Amino acid sequence: MSISASPITAMPPSDRSRVRRAAERAHYDQATVHAIVDAAWVCHVAFNDGDHVVCIPTASWRVGDTLYVHGSNGSRMMKRLAEGAPACVTITHVDGLVMARSAFSHSMNYRSVVVHGRFSAVPEDAKAAVLDALMDHMAPGRREHARAPDESELKATTVLGIPLLEAAAKIRNWGPRDKDEDLALPVWAGVLPLREQRLPPVDEPGFDGPVPAYVSRWTD
Amino acid sequence: MSISASPITAMPPSDRSRVRRAAERAHYDQATVHAIVDAAWVCHVAFNDGDHVVCIPTASWRVGDTLYVHGSNGSRMMKRLAEGAPACVTITHVDGLVMARSAFSHSMNYRSVVVHGRFSAVPEDAKAAVLDALMDHMAPGRREHARAPDESELKATTVLGIPLLEAAAKIRNWGPRDKDEDLALPVWAGVLPLREQRLPPVDEPGFDGPVPAYVSRWTD
Repeated sequence: MSISASPITAMPPSDRSRVRRAAERAHYDQATVHAIVDAAWVCHVAFNDGDHVVCIPTASWRVGDTLYVHGSNGSRMMKRLAEGAPACVTITHVDGLVMARSAFSHSMNYRSVVVHGRFSAVPEDAKAAVLDALMDHMAPGRREHARAPDESELKATTVLGIPLLEAAAKIRNWGPRDKDEDLALPVWAGVLPLREQRLPPVDEPGFDGPVPAYVSRWTD
Repeated sequence: MSISASPITAMPPSDRSRVRRAAERAHYDQATVHAIVDAAWVCHVAFNDGDHVVCIPTASWRVGDTLYVHGSNGSRMMKRLAEGAPACVTITHVDGLVMARSAFSHSMNYRSVVVHGRFSAVPEDAKAAVLDALMDHMAPGRREHARAPDESELKATTVLGIPLLEAAAKIRNWGPRDKDEDLALPVWAGVLPLREQRLPPVDEPGFDGPVPAYVSRWTD
């Protein structure tokens, strides 16, 4: 997956979306934000529930400029977010451990996005299409195979979207940056890279049809 | 990495740490919480900064019953958390996509921990030992090689700990659970597994000593 660093559509940072720490890692262009969102299976949603702050991981996907989450109508997160509670949505991919000559200069390589805003509920008649996009995100083609949601399943599901407009990406993807006086120290320095790996599919018994491409090619 | 499901030390859930959705996935024993924390490089910290909620990813590690984070004294997150702002810390590992016969029953396999509480600052004279533990978490043995923090580096760093006591783990690690009436549908069902992969180290030039074991064995 490549992260474009060139602004396609710039989104000027708001006061709260502006990156303050390590600002040289900040990106505010849509293409960068979208690529990080699209590479994620889950986001972390922070909001206030009564008098305490909560941070919950949940599946996320994108259509256009909107990040979506979903859940049971009965979920307290779905209820609070649907009411318009202010939210912060964060996605993080850790790409490596950065080993510098000094302990102080150790770091990590990562790609992250922080979104501020409020969710709003997807109307009943648009839910099916937005949930189809979740299926496309998990496995392109899957929606042609799996049984589509029936009316009661759609009714039981809350789907919420938040605009990816007040958003900032942060990327670190370089080697250690030691202080000048540490560069000659006889210490191994470099990056220990990490990435997400796909392991061979685990089949449920009872299916003898042709294996779909998103299964047979999962580890390609 | 194995996740023990057998309670070693049970932590009775508080009202806010009790898992409400999919409660059969909940675990409140220390061994399970610790294993999920120890498998993570970063956590997501949610807190309120003035009148808005914020969720920030940051490196995390554990010593005993405490999860630690660190940052520059100037960071607004460090300042707010050191003041005792209520916080929620969440760690999530995505282990697979769960493909059911019906779109509605699709799910993900994952291990997560949600911690409620407040951080407190590690005193000046204990910082070095807690930061050594971060080094041990990133690469056992590294602290013998890297230049240790000097006094000014230690002074510039805030180290904060939060007790892993008001904490709940949630684990889903099984195949699809379709409704009975969907089981006979001619649809491939199963799990598309995911895990973190370690890729070969990337060396910085200029070091010709022996390569440490945490580098040479990184991908083992």
